[in-house]
Amino acid sequence: MKYILILLFIPFLSNAQIKQEQLDLMPWPQNINLTAGTFVLSKSFKVNITGNSNPRIFLGATNFLRRLDGRTGLFLEQAFVIKNNEVNEAELQINCVRNGKIGLNEDESYQLEIQPNKIMINATTDIGALHALETLLQMLQNTSTLFYFPTAIITDYPRFTWRGLMIDAARHFQPVDVIKRNLDAMASMKMNVFHWHLADDQGWRIEIKKYPKLTQLASDGYYYTQEEIKSVVKYADERGILVIPEIDVPGHASALLSAFPEIGSKVSNEATYTVGRRSGIYTPTLDPTNPKTYQLLGEIFDAVCPLFPGNYFHIGGDENQGKEWDANPKIQEFKKKNGLANNHELQTYFTMKLIPMLKKHNKELMGWEEIMTKNMSKEAIIHSWKGVNESVSPGGSLVAAAKNGYKTVLSNGYYIDLMLGVQSHYLNDPIPKNAVLTAEEKARILGGEATMWSELVTPLNIDSRIWPRTAAIAERLWSNENVTDLNSLHKRMKTISFRLEELGIMHLRNKEVILRNISNNQETKALRDFSNVCEPLKVYKRNGGGKKYFMFSPLTLFADACTADAFDAYDFDTAVNNYLENKNIENQTLVTNFFRKWIAMNADLISLSGNAPLIQPLLPLSKNLKDISEELLLIIENKKTMNPDLLNGLLEKFNSRSPADVEVAVYANLKKLSQ
Amino acid sequence: MKYILILLFIPFLSNAQIKQEQLDLMPWPQNINLTAGTFVLSKSFKVNITGNSNPRIFLGATNFLRRLDGRTGLFLEQAFVIKNNEVNEAELQINCVRNGKIGLNEDESYQLEIQPNKIMINATTDIGALHALETLLQMLQNTSTLFYFPTAIITDYPRFTWRGLMIDAARHFQPVDVIKRNLDAMASMKMNVFHWHLADDQGWRIEIKKYPKLTQLASDGYYYTQEEIKSVVKYADERGILVIPEIDVPGHASALLSAFPEIGSKVSNEATYTVGRRSGIYTPTLDPTNPKTYQLLGEIFDAVCPLFPGNYFHIGGDENQGKEWDANPKIQEFKKKNGLANNHELQTYFTMKLIPMLKKHNKELMGWEEIMTKNMSKEAIIHSWKGVNESVSPGGSLVAAAKNGYKTVLSNGYYIDLMLGVQSHYLNDPIPKNAVLTAEEKARILGGEATMWSELVTPLNIDSRIWPRTAAIAERLWSNENVTDLNSLHKRMKTISFRLEELGIMHLRNKEVILRNISNNQETKALRDFSNVCEPLKVYKRNGGGKKYFMFSPLTLFADACTADAFDAYDFDTAVNNYLENKNIENQTLVTNFFRKWIAMNADLISLSGNAPLIQPLLPLSKNLKDISEELLLIIENKKTMNPDLLNGLLEKFNSRSPADVEVAVYANLKKLSQ
Repeated sequence: MKYILILLFIPFLSNAQIKQEQLDLMPWPQNINLTAGTFVLSKSFKVNITGNSNPRIFLGATNFLRRLDGRTGLFLEQAFVIKNNEVNEAELQINCVRNGKIGLNEDESYQLEIQPNKIMINATTDIGALHALETLLQMLQNTSTLFYFPTAIITDYPRFTWRGLMIDAARHFQPVDVIKRNLDAMASMKMNVFHWHLADDQGWRIEIKKYPKLTQLASDGYYYTQEEIKSVVKYADERGILVIPEIDVPGHASALLSAFPEIGSKVSNEATYTVGRRSGIYTPTLDPTNPKTYQLLGEIFDAVCPLFPGNYFHIGGDENQGKEWDANPKIQEFKKKNGLANNHELQTYFTMKLIPMLKKHNKELMGWEEIMTKNMSKEAIIHSWKGVNESVSPGGSLVAAAKNGYKTVLSNGYYIDLMLGVQSHYLNDPIPKNAVLTAEEKARILGGEATMWSELVTPLNIDSRIWPRTAAIAERLWSNENVTDLNSLHKRMKTISFRLEELGIMHLRNKEVILRNISNNQETKALRDFSNVCEPLKVYKRNGGGKKYFMFSPLTLFADACTADAFDAYDFDTAVNNYLENKNIENQTLVTNFFRKWIAMNADLISLSGNAPLIQPLLPLSKNLKDISEELLLIIENKKTMNPDLLNGLLEKFNSRSPADVEVAVYANLKKLSQ
Repeated sequence: MKYILILLFIPFLSNAQIKQEQLDLMPWPQNINLTAGTFVLSKSFKVNITGNSNPRIFLGATNFLRRLDGRTGLFLEQAFVIKNNEVNEAELQINCVRNGKIGLNEDESYQLEIQPNKIMINATTDIGALHALETLLQMLQNTSTLFYFPTAIITDYPRFTWRGLMIDAARHFQPVDVIKRNLDAMASMKMNVFHWHLADDQGWRIEIKKYPKLTQLASDGYYYTQEEIKSVVKYADERGILVIPEIDVPGHASALLSAFPEIGSKVSNEATYTVGRRSGIYTPTLDPTNPKTYQLLGEIFDAVCPLFPGNYFHIGGDENQGKEWDANPKIQEFKKKNGLANNHELQTYFTMKLIPMLKKHNKELMGWEEIMTKNMSKEAIIHSWKGVNESVSPGGSLVAAAKNGYKTVLSNGYYIDLMLGVQSHYLNDPIPKNAVLTAEEKARILGGEATMWSELVTPLNIDSRIWPRTAAIAERLWSNENVTDLNSLHKRMKTISFRLEELGIMHLRNKEVILRNISNNQETKALRDFSNVCEPLKVYKRNGGGKKYFMFSPLTLFADACTADAFDAYDFDTAVNNYLENKNIENQTLVTNFFRKWIAMNADLISLSGNAPLIQPLLPLSKNLKDISEELLLIIENKKTMNPDLLNGLLEKFNSRSPADVEVAVYANLKKLSQ
């Protein structure tokens, strides 16, 4: 028996050298040196912690064991890691020199060395060690019968210190479990800043004990209690993540003002405000001339700040159009009296008053780029968000801020709510190639942040809007700037996307839920096939002018099952490019298989629609795809010659808006084949 | 255009009379009278509330609108229902005479009348009205293009006042979101008691502020804060559900004693206890002779009781084998001194001391059937759970309790953790057909409760263990005792199971998650096909003797993707029975299609296993199914004559335990075909 085992192992070991390109690591480490050996996992695999460790790494190591066991089904013997030096002979040794402090500029580096019988993680802080454990989980490989790690030495550290995700919990409330599972996913991508957008026109989402009116009148019952906030902050801390709250003022204040109309800028003292139910920019704005405004905000900050141990507080400050200010003679008079030339200066006056209110709690003020006016304190952090959609040069404020002496964070280009393909985000570097910046100015660019605005996002579909694209953003912010290969990105994202499921991310599973609902519990294959070539309308086209979707509208529709980077579109793109390069029969078949699939799919959708009203809006677009597929199939298989007019007509049909609020992601390739 | 519309509608309306058998209502209402009309839904559909209403029905009506909109995609115009008489002209009028009180014996009846242009709900209490809204959602029908309700008059009320679900949050912790989504599902099945098992050998799950040690030492960090408990109780209240806490004493106390060893029954004063990590019965038991025991329990009750406004408190009381008591001379002496003949009497002594401690908080004591000893107070509620597995007559204690003057609740026969098929639960009536009971005795049988013990249950797989089988139990407890048609049950359960998804129940979606993990992100079709004929080992065979699975073992395995009532087994059963009755070619094809599917599936599994170690344990069983499928296929298609020895040999193979911890659910039908 012994001999047989050895014989079985020989082919495995001799072929073991894995190539870097085969690894699905993300974000890609700074240095990786693969060697020829393997570390084979068995149920006796154990972890030992040494150094100056703490509950964070004990919990991290325990969670690591459970995830490893869940993947491998090995029935690992070690249950919990609860103190140092528990299992001195353990195969995995983790050493941390000191406790990490959650916040910016902490040492997050680590070294991970995998030897055939031993794995060593060395890190200055436990936060670095947590990152190492994520890398180790990503290193897991398998044969047909066992799981192993390839031997390697990895040294790694982040390029930027701010690698953030913002979630807007105001427009659609996102319960604690949604936040926590996304914190897990962030940690797995080595992200370290969670920016929590807690108040906007559509809702006030944080309990203020002194002012229960806020949540009673402005949350529809959907808000975080202070204890829930604390539990999220603790959960984030355990994963090395800093939480930054945002209370958006002086604009985006409809919810706040619906509870406290007396601090609004409307002329009448008896004016009222209501919570917003639609998308878009609202006019309600705090009155910067009213002392009560600062008194109330001060009390709110006094309640909110202690919940967040980090040193940053986001006050929003964006999209104040000043309409209420312009319309209020009292405010105009105030500007004149105080030598404030325009509304920008008035807003600066307002924002400057907030700085000491936050400093009292040891918090630096952060705001969207509109706060950067000439008299703004250099202590403020500028959050750069505007770009082409706002008719300004993309991320222009970032460079300006760095040059003006502000610390700054980039979100322009990372607006994942726009439903753009991953490549645009991935290739968006926080330090623009063409920017001429001194080392000091560069150092002020702290990093970047993906922004999940939630106009069209609910707990059902939010994960598929955040992931896996945010993993690519995480790589941009962590990895070397030269890591930009798109083929590698796409290949690795497939595995990373799948692995996010083990952290509770629902992007894959909830897609099926939506399709089952649309199908009325019939077979979902045709819907799935169609969803894999459709993408939700991009930028703000799905809800242009905020006219179609209100905050209570259904987001259980086909467009909600579809995602950016439609699954089959990338493969079709590859197939078409290969075919156009070499029209051999294999390449041809890869293309024509897609056409056959879409023709059959259209027939299936028609059949399903007999018992599923929600399929009706899909049929025109599906028919367009079937029509052009039939035509191109005949042409490619030489049963018909190309008729450019006919094909142009068929292509033209794709330009009408689909009632399903999606577009086909294969249009460009259909066009290529039609020429 | 008008004419065309009318013409289009005529065939719909004239064929509109739906039959009762087509409705997928569950639990089936007491009276339903269908008429020939239809109420067609449009986006202008609105709700109006009248009578003595309250926030519960406003929230219920709002949630109803969102669910209806999520299903239909109609973009309903009404956002929130926040007060009485908001929309007097609304098509749906809900009238409640008075506020319901959460608890037993409340009036839960309702009348639902659907007319072609108007729907009326009349109920004594808002709780009845909430039930009516669930029925209305179940009444929703569709054509190919629209959604409608068939006209009908339904009058409905529950047969039993206790329609419960117990969730064991001790053995595997179940976070708040798991509890809340299951409360939603319970409400949709008109269940009204949530029994929350909060402490057992494997964990103490409720924060006691005076004694933080309990959760620090005995929860591994997994427990409910008092605020979380309150939020669950509130959530349940909003859905008409009473929450009953259970603190299991004097046995099942390893966790409690690991924090407070001084009140344990071990002889030594320096004895220690540890939190349980395995399944099975533990010996650690509270010391009933120690005044400190009562002092501590009193303080725990003082902390727990105010969190639960209901009038019931479950103290467990089960499975105390008295081993520690027998081994402790001091305790033996106490028994002698106090004239307690045996451990039963000692336990009664203990339990009786708890009654006033609970009465102080206006709570009646409830316990598992072991508490029913001769001196037990008649105020206690007896929870009947033992049966064949415990070598006693099924539910025997229920009848005994009713005869002895106790109120009683049935759980024997509703142990959903045993992974038995739904029929056994469905046909288990709380009032046994053969029991001779007076009307008064019958009235003491309050109802029944499904019990979700969590030895093998995590947030990933729990929903598929609870649902849809618990829907059948809910029907048993609500509907007329004559509603027992199994074909109707199976047909309706398919739709009900699907609809539970909209409440966030994860049984369907998480199955795919587990299969994706097993497949190592390959195509899951073959695994899905196999999981649809396999069922996890039943009763306690999967973890016999508690030897295989500990509380930290992986529950991400094939057995966790499989469920009771394997999806394809019922259809195969129908196909085989039809074929054996009439061997025509259609019936033959229905059977042989299964065989072809399983033969192909086995080949696919082998192929997938090349890159998926977790598939290896499935292959022997899959091969057995393929082997007998090939043989029976040849026989049925007359390509071979039957060889009984060969077939018996093939069948015999199914009797070895599969390393995948499952069994095929088609064995009996394979055997039928082999004869």
